[in-house]
Amino acid sequence: MLESVRIVLVNTSHPGNIGGVARAMKNMGVEQLVLVEPKEFPSEKATARSSGATDILESARVVDTLDQALEGCNYVVGASARGRHIPWPVVDPRTLVEDIVPQTEQLQVALVFGREDRGLTNEELHRCNRHVHIPSNPDFSSLNLAAAVQVLCYELRMQVLRQQRNPTEEQPRWGTEWDIELASADELQLLFEHMEQALVDIDFLDPNNPRQLMTRLRRLYLRSHPDKVEVNVLRGILTATQKLLDKQN
Amino acid sequence: MLESVRIVLVNTSHPGNIGGVARAMKNMGVEQLVLVEPKEFPSEKATARSSGATDILESARVVDTLDQALEGCNYVVGASARGRHIPWPVVDPRTLVEDIVPQTEQLQVALVFGREDRGLTNEELHRCNRHVHIPSNPDFSSLNLAAAVQVLCYELRMQVLRQQRNPTEEQPRWGTEWDIELASADELQLLFEHMEQALVDIDFLDPNNPRQLMTRLRRLYLRSHPDKVEVNVLRGILTATQKLLDKQN
Repeated sequence: MLESVRIVLVNTSHPGNIGGVARAMKNMGVEQLVLVEPKEFPSEKATARSSGATDILESARVVDTLDQALEGCNYVVGASARGRHIPWPVVDPRTLVEDIVPQTEQLQVALVFGREDRGLTNEELHRCNRHVHIPSNPDFSSLNLAAAVQVLCYELRMQVLRQQRNPTEEQPRWGTEWDIELASADELQLLFEHMEQALVDIDFLDPNNPRQLMTRLRRLYLRSHPDKVEVNVLRGILTATQKLLDKQN
Repeated sequence: MLESVRIVLVNTSHPGNIGGVARAMKNMGVEQLVLVEPKEFPSEKATARSSGATDILESARVVDTLDQALEGCNYVVGASARGRHIPWPVVDPRTLVEDIVPQTEQLQVALVFGREDRGLTNEELHRCNRHVHIPSNPDFSSLNLAAAVQVLCYELRMQVLRQQRNPTEEQPRWGTEWDIELASADELQLLFEHMEQALVDIDFLDPNNPRQLMTRLRRLYLRSHPDKVEVNVLRGILTATQKLLDKQN
């Protein structure tokens, strides 16, 4: 879904940054890199910093002008600091990807990043449909070039994944794939009944004055979404405790 | 609001990465850095890559053990690749910050990042309440250390900003501060009436067969949220056109 997105770097000074950008892109599944008059490319420094994203570097297009870089694009986004003389529609990365990703089939997107020291010129910024600003500390606002590309490509990937996710899929609240099936409500209910009985057995819980003990325990365990094995382990502990008592009596 | 968040780097090999992390942190307003047995620190390479975030480097704590780094923390998060033997609750950065930021007053958070080549050990990961995984290309999943810290600190800052934002505030859909007040609905209505009359005047619009012309024009202009000056400019053009016609007649 990110095939129609290209990253355009204008007049990059440090080849290491080009390598860092390539790595960030490949990490996030973005593949098209276009370099407008880079100071030094190809470069060993770029290859080193790419940490193996050499395919991105090898297929990068090097061009002379921003015009050439934008050929065929219908949605041009310029990375920008705040406070230009003529304001342009400025979005944060989240808002940008929420706009772009649902329509990637119709769009050819260019994300344009400027020079390390001065960013994009006003003329370059005025070629853009949108400017994107990464909300940063006003007293220290300039991100490293590869870090800025990382943030944008990360947001793109997150949005693609969110769009692909089936909202009806039931997931534990931590959102991960687990190796064991989660315990069912029935199994948990049996666990709590077993627990309550065991607590009575050991004289910890007074059935005539239970207060909120079981409520607190339920809340504790339910919060963690126990899986089937964990429930078996807990019940094993309870059973072992009860057996110990039987022996004593 | 991010004062209670510390970044912990374990056994970092390349001092340049420590500098890159400091820069990423300062860009996003995160200030506490703790280094567990860094290979080389302080270091000129760290200072150079920090691009001026020297205050973060100077106030960084260097410690011998992860235990010392986590002192006083009550919410420990380890950066992790997928596929550990014993799964742990794994969240993506977005889910993590949605959990952390609303309760930063109660929490002391440590975000722990491992070695460049091997990440965190299982033992270190088992010290964590949560693992965080940045969704990445399965075929090329290892982010640069500073890039990973950048993504997490960016998410933290975004969540703080979203939480501070007043949801009742009316904003243009591009979410930026504009220098001119947006045109009111009244002003836009007057613009469209003026436009319609002018289009009739120039025989472009047949009042007996208007089709969808004004609808299309409305949609075009409304989509762009014109400001007051832009509306005045458009009306100026219409007036000028009408005056030209008056002269001709």
